[in-house]
Amino acid sequence: MIKIGILGSTGYVGLELARLLSNHPEAEVVFLDSRSYENKAYSSIFPNMKNIIDIPCVSINLDHEESLKGIDLLFCALPHGLSQKAVQTAYRLGIKVIDMSADFRIKNAAVYEEWYNVKHEALPELNKAVYGLCELHREDIKKAEIIANPGCYPTSIILALYPLLKEKAVTLDSLIVDSKSGVSGAGRNLNDAIIYGQCNESVKAYSIGSHRHTPEIEQELSLAAEEETMLQFTPHLIPMTRGILSTIYFNNKKSLTDKDMAEIYEQYYKDEFFIRLLQIGELPQTKAVYGTNYCDIGFKADKRTNRIVLVSAIDNLVKGAAGQAVQNMNLLFDLKETTGLKLTPVWP
Amino acid sequence: MIKIGILGSTGYVGLELARLLSNHPEAEVVFLDSRSYENKAYSSIFPNMKNIIDIPCVSINLDHEESLKGIDLLFCALPHGLSQKAVQTAYRLGIKVIDMSADFRIKNAAVYEEWYNVKHEALPELNKAVYGLCELHREDIKKAEIIANPGCYPTSIILALYPLLKEKAVTLDSLIVDSKSGVSGAGRNLNDAIIYGQCNESVKAYSIGSHRHTPEIEQELSLAAEEETMLQFTPHLIPMTRGILSTIYFNNKKSLTDKDMAEIYEQYYKDEFFIRLLQIGELPQTKAVYGTNYCDIGFKADKRTNRIVLVSAIDNLVKGAAGQAVQNMNLLFDLKETTGLKLTPVWP
Amino acid sequence: MIKIGILGSTGYVGLELARLLSNHPEAEVVFLDSRSYENKAYSSIFPNMKNIIDIPCVSINLDHEESLKGIDLLFCALPHGLSQKAVQTAYRLGIKVIDMSADFRIKNAAVYEEWYNVKHEALPELNKAVYGLCELHREDIKKAEIIANPGCYPTSIILALYPLLKEKAVTLDSLIVDSKSGVSGAGRNLNDAIIYGQCNESVKAYSIGSHRHTPEIEQELSLAAEEETMLQFTPHLIPMTRGILSTIYFNNKKSLTDKDMAEIYEQYYKDEFFIRLLQIGELPQTKAVYGTNYCDIGFKADKRTNRIVLVSAIDNLVKGAAGQAVQNMNLLFDLKETTGLKLTPVWP
Amino acid sequence: MIKIGILGSTGYVGLELARLLSNHPEAEVVFLDSRSYENKAYSSIFPNMKNIIDIPCVSINLDHEESLKGIDLLFCALPHGLSQKAVQTAYRLGIKVIDMSADFRIKNAAVYEEWYNVKHEALPELNKAVYGLCELHREDIKKAEIIANPGCYPTSIILALYPLLKEKAVTLDSLIVDSKSGVSGAGRNLNDAIIYGQCNESVKAYSIGSHRHTPEIEQELSLAAEEETMLQFTPHLIPMTRGILSTIYFNNKKSLTDKDMAEIYEQYYKDEFFIRLLQIGELPQTKAVYGTNYCDIGFKADKRTNRIVLVSAIDNLVKGAAGQAVQNMNLLFDLKETTGLKLTPVWP
Repeated sequence: MIKIGILGSTGYVGLELARLLSNHPEAEVVFLDSRSYENKAYSSIFPNMKNIIDIPCVSINLDHEESLKGIDLLFCALPHGLSQKAVQTAYRLGIKVIDMSADFRIKNAAVYEEWYNVKHEALPELNKAVYGLCELHREDIKKAEIIANPGCYPTSIILALYPLLKEKAVTLDSLIVDSKSGVSGAGRNLNDAIIYGQCNESVKAYSIGSHRHTPEIEQELSLAAEEETMLQFTPHLIPMTRGILSTIYFNNKKSLTDKDMAEIYEQYYKDEFFIRLLQIGELPQTKAVYGTNYCDIGFKADKRTNRIVLVSAIDNLVKGAAGQAVQNMNLLFDLKETTGLKLTPVWP
Repeated sequence: MIKIGILGSTGYVGLELARLLSNHPEAEVVFLDSRSYENKAYSSIFPNMKNIIDIPCVSINLDHEESLKGIDLLFCALPHGLSQKAVQTAYRLGIKVIDMSADFRIKNAAVYEEWYNVKHEALPELNKAVYGLCELHREDIKKAEIIANPGCYPTSIILALYPLLKEKAVTLDSLIVDSKSGVSGAGRNLNDAIIYGQCNESVKAYSIGSHRHTPEIEQELSLAAEEETMLQFTPHLIPMTRGILSTIYFNNKKSLTDKDMAEIYEQYYKDEFFIRLLQIGELPQTKAVYGTNYCDIGFKADKRTNRIVLVSAIDNLVKGAAGQAVQNMNLLFDLKETTGLKLTPVWP
Repeated sequence: MIKIGILGSTGYVGLELARLLSNHPEAEVVFLDSRSYENKAYSSIFPNMKNIIDIPCVSINLDHEESLKGIDLLFCALPHGLSQKAVQTAYRLGIKVIDMSADFRIKNAAVYEEWYNVKHEALPELNKAVYGLCELHREDIKKAEIIANPGCYPTSIILALYPLLKEKAVTLDSLIVDSKSGVSGAGRNLNDAIIYGQCNESVKAYSIGSHRHTPEIEQELSLAAEEETMLQFTPHLIPMTRGILSTIYFNNKKSLTDKDMAEIYEQYYKDEFFIRLLQIGELPQTKAVYGTNYCDIGFKADKRTNRIVLVSAIDNLVKGAAGQAVQNMNLLFDLKETTGLKLTPVWP
Repeated sequence: MIKIGILGSTGYVGLELARLLSNHPEAEVVFLDSRSYENKAYSSIFPNMKNIIDIPCVSINLDHEESLKGIDLLFCALPHGLSQKAVQTAYRLGIKVIDMSADFRIKNAAVYEEWYNVKHEALPELNKAVYGLCELHREDIKKAEIIANPGCYPTSIILALYPLLKEKAVTLDSLIVDSKSGVSGAGRNLNDAIIYGQCNESVKAYSIGSHRHTPEIEQELSLAAEEETMLQFTPHLIPMTRGILSTIYFNNKKSLTDKDMAEIYEQYYKDEFFIRLLQIGELPQTKAVYGTNYCDIGFKADKRTNRIVLVSAIDNLVKGAAGQAVQNMNLLFDLKETTGLKLTPVWP
């Protein structure tokens, strides 16, 4: 059994981790950290957890190294900025750590500091960190000490684009991504924007051209394309709880057909359990991946405009956060990659 | 491995069975019957099933007995009336059958015929059938050949009332049940009442005093109370996909306190994995059981009025249908009752 | 033109008042009070108001009487407790006031203090206040100085029961009310219970036997019945923004038929513009009254159980709050009662 | 009073017309045509209409010209293809007609026939028809006999782009539009795609590169740009009832700043009642226009990418259909353009 601690266990990502780990045959959650809910039973905060995880939350003090003693793996589900010390501490203690924040995702600290407006105080660990998009960096992940678990939007976008980028089929300066996210993506910190009356029966764009996931996405797209890539990215909030749908547009410089694309995707992803390639003519929808680690991908070559449109769907809290983290854990601990993650989505 | 056939696999109950069985370690689905979708790949109808169940649907002809050959268990998810022949055929062939319709739930055929306006043509099998509410009839279920899987509303109501009925704590002639169901309870047959524009942002009552689950509920309440019971039952449709919340009212003839009730429920249900007893002061909500086989129960003795109010929450498609059916299957085949059903509800 | 001030204009009730008054031909809003949003343009808080009400909020200091000078009518949409001083001040200045809080609804100050846990400091004004349920107290309202605008649940319940209470057709000690409310009923003050992720796809009961609207309802039911009435009342939160559906149960002591009830309702309400009596066999739904001041009422005599079930539907923010307040204003100022309120509900 | 007939009154567009006209001081609806609901009271189909429009539907036979006698204006809310005969008949009888279908929107009949796969049989009337986007073609509309009322997506897109097209500020070959629509946009004809269980908690793209509104949008964009324009257009279905949000991307060839754009929009739209220009930094949301004829427009110049992103929000059934039709009616009959349309959106 892998002994696990979760820092920040009462945010939605921490909770989703707890849910997934509760069904993982090799995982044992040793502590659930929460400053706000210290000593409160986990199931009294989240009624779904009744009889499943009833232990009380603890408040971990990172200044006392013994507080992390006895665990094999630390999941860090703290807000960005706060993760740095936690990751440093774990690393120093030889504890593997999967960080869910943005703190270790962006290799260039200056870029991180510019977009997140926070000083990076853990540069050695940043250099050690592996970007945990399993399908792209599997071998590096297996050997890593620190995993920077990808963001939700980045996961949905990078997975869809990767094969075509590798094939140099994307006209990079035409790349536009329009993403739609459920409200859980905004977390559970109280603010006017996430109350029911504001979100229900409404859709809006936000952070046009300035969303913090932009540099993370650009880093990985550039890597795959072997060329500097700049992204036009617009996230939207839509009235549902979970799910991200990303619609991706670019000029079809190689005049690929749908059939060509089907072959390329097949070549890259045919052995990837969590990537489901839809057939030509089918398009993804978020309900089809609800609560699971799948990323569904569809595509369409528009002959009239000579553009390609890609569409990908994930559950923002699973493949976009906690599910991918568990997938990373499985890789780190040499388990079958699908362990604890073979979930069938509910429908309807 | 239990070899399984599902009749009516493309309704929501059939689909939920397929979902649950896809994660059941001892189940192998041999055929998925559907008249409307014959030869269509299951995952082309239900995109959640992509890469999970891709086999095509078949249309089973019950006149050819060989069509059921080779299976150990038949799940019958056909509309009421149509189940009778299927159950008869399976029974004759020595195949265990779990029927999801109302056809074998009501012991008194005359009552069935009055409420369902259909002649009952399978009386010998009706006599053989066991009402598959696992927590109440476990021992009979283990030995059954035919299981009548309970309705969704009845499950939510009977489980909540059972301990207090056994304790003669319910003033039967004061019993009122007000239930709220998600729209999936109305199935997926096209009709104006279930289109998005009609249901979203609206709540309504329907079938006041005349819902067909009434005699089924009354039968089981009467059994538990050892006294003829007549129910005031009002179902409501509310704008969500899954879930039933039942609010139950009756006069507190024994002047029980909340603490008394906590003890009674504990006594009856402490070993029931799928029943979660909330603490005094807590009340159930459907989200907490979403997608799972749990039934959450809360209660409140109102001292001012000397009434008791019970509240129960289930997922109508799981504990209210397919999940309970799998629980019945586990009992029938001598498996651990929770096999394939240890699901943690998503939140949010 | 009636010159109007609104205290607490940035809660949902205050906002709904502003919306309705923006279409009222005889109303001129002179100030929109808000402590939290002082000096912020109203339309910057509520984007629906863009180009409609762009004036900034002001923070009214009741200690300076001149702050209310120049208005003919004060709407007080403050939380309970805070209204008392505002109503006193307006009354002393000879300004008519419609109070949306509970502070002046309950005639018996001791009952108010017990349920609201607040001392009542404005007893003379409490004695002057008229309970503003227009259909019941129209003549008193016309002559009033202070109107206590009814609560949302009470409006939906009292209007449905009133004719049958007057006809002594309700077995009072059997009376049970099960209400379902949209989330806007919980206001817009930030708390975990109203964030999207908690409410969406879930239903729950709350405040069983202890909701603060109980004594208000009991007061008015007792008045109509000419007999002390005690209510079993359970409110529920359901995943929609607006609307209350109340389902009301009681023993049918006079063995009324549906036709009898149709006649009684017709007799009491045939001239009431805002009450729509559904035909026998029809049942209300909240969508049909969305955004409007209607109260739809349906009923069913269940012969089998000899009980009556009533169902009423209102928009909690309109007939349940701001719409009724405007109706009261129209009565107070001798306008046609429907002025500014002839709205057709949207569908779908 | 303008005497009005509505063909196809029981679709969502016909219903929305009926709603808006019920509050229009100069409109009198003479008949509500429906083949499916002949002789059924309108309010028995749409319960919101109770006591507002109770008259029965009639089935108009266009072969009998007298069936249209006595009306001044015909609204035609039939599916495309079926409108042609109706418009011809009305035109021959000298009755003004506002057609809500696509039949008279596309000037080039060959293009119409290619995208709609229907032969155009009313070419003379097509030549007479004026495209009824009021803000662009106001003077032509006033003199028209036949109005082709714009589609919902086109309205949201053309209004947002028009000023920048006129200013030659749009790099046409980079134009990409990503639209999100509520489910009511799919109408109320029964089909699996619009049932609650399919739509709720899901988002999907559809008709990528092939949606039938494409040529209509391209026609009007080309007109404004004075240059042939080809559009990349992707509509999405999101889980809400009403509203369209369009997100529009193109290269900023003139390197406009937000301030430049604010000035351009102000110049074109400052006198347009129904267009609300958001301030720099604000972005539209569909809830803010719910149930009303407003089109809210926001914009963002992304300096980093040198692209412009526009966002517009309308209610698909109002400014995207019936509201714009009433606006057209007001122009046709020389009424104040806002008559019957000064509605304040509900919030929340």
